[in-house]
Amino acid sequence: MDKEITLYTNPWSRGAIAHWMLEEVGVPYRIEVLDYKGQMKTPQYLAINPMGKVPAIVHGNRVVTETAAICAYLADAFPEAGLAPPPAERAAYYRWLFFGAGPMETALSLSACDFEPTPEQQMQMGFGTKARVLDTLADALRDRRHIAGDRFSAADVYVGSFVGWSMQFGTIDKRPEFVAYWDGLKDRPAHRRVEEQTERMAPPPVAQETSQG
Amino acid sequence: MDKEITLYTNPWSRGAIAHWMLEEVGVPYRIEVLDYKGQMKTPQYLAINPMGKVPAIVHGNRVVTETAAICAYLADAFPEAGLAPPPAERAAYYRWLFFGAGPMETALSLSACDFEPTPEQQMQMGFGTKARVLDTLADALRDRRHIAGDRFSAADVYVGSFVGWSMQFGTIDKRPEFVAYWDGLKDRPAHRRVEEQTERMAPPPVAQETSQG
Repeated sequence: MDKEITLYTNPWSRGAIAHWMLEEVGVPYRIEVLDYKGQMKTPQYLAINPMGKVPAIVHGNRVVTETAAICAYLADAFPEAGLAPPPAERAAYYRWLFFGAGPMETALSLSACDFEPTPEQQMQMGFGTKARVLDTLADALRDRRHIAGDRFSAADVYVGSFVGWSMQFGTIDKRPEFVAYWDGLKDRPAHRRVEEQTERMAPPPVAQETSQG
Repeated sequence: MDKEITLYTNPWSRGAIAHWMLEEVGVPYRIEVLDYKGQMKTPQYLAINPMGKVPAIVHGNRVVTETAAICAYLADAFPEAGLAPPPAERAAYYRWLFFGAGPMETALSLSACDFEPTPEQQMQMGFGTKARVLDTLADALRDRRHIAGDRFSAADVYVGSFVGWSMQFGTIDKRPEFVAYWDGLKDRPAHRRVEEQTERMAPPPVAQETSQG
């Protein structure tokens, strides 16, 4: 696995989640920072991600987009890092990765847009309400260090990032389950390195206007 | 792998996707049909899926919720069915599974709710516009039989179901890429069996009001 890895990202975007995952994997990679003013919409970048957003990674001749997909891909491409359960034991792992990428992401984004679905729309949307999403997540995290099984995994990188960032930006309440979970993750050396690198790339935003991906 | 599998579903819901996946895997399972009038909100079912929605599967003592997670889990739990690429070759597989569970699902659901995000909200939401989602998907499917690599996989069950159903219910246009893709999937014996079983369970809905999950 000596093919080059490039991460296309922007500081303080969801790209920081992919960045953390790369640091956990522990293989060399290089970073291409793209701004929101046009660099994500060039023909060169749209050939990598036609959605025109970050993050994306290119690993040799392979392209992975969607933040959770990057986490899952890297865990499987570098099994020596031990960031995914064995294939036969992935019930909780996939459950919470897709819960994060689906209901959690949608509920938090729509809440930030002040969109409150009606009861009929709640059926349509498949996430119900933000309250139900957060209750479900809090229940799953109660008295647990990790969201999937007894070990740290790519699912913690993904779900943990949302929990940590959302508390930081005030989009979710600091429930004891969320605080304890994030306290167990945020000081991992890989995460600290990403924080330091991100701050060197750009100052922290005052609001969540750069969140994307 | 002789632990019992139970699928909790409702006819004409996203549960049909998990149902199709089970038929592709080819192992025995039993179905519990839950109505929307309360059976998804009983304490017994909320202990399985606190989100109070279908589908969910219970496999032995393992629970999997979220439709795409069920597809990914079953592919890995039953590798002899050959429904997932080897772990080191999952770039496209994860990319399109998560694209389906994230931007595609969100764009189609919000469109059904008549919610059109502003340019600022498009940045926030991470899917941009429904048009960009559909263009991205059409590009990925052009001249391809399968969304991830050269073989049928769980990603086709998931993404293909959305494409087929959305065309059927008129929520996406019948672009040639979508029609060709679905034509290559819909007559698979496993899918035909699910259609027949679904019609025996309940008549087809006149609109998409039962779509959930």
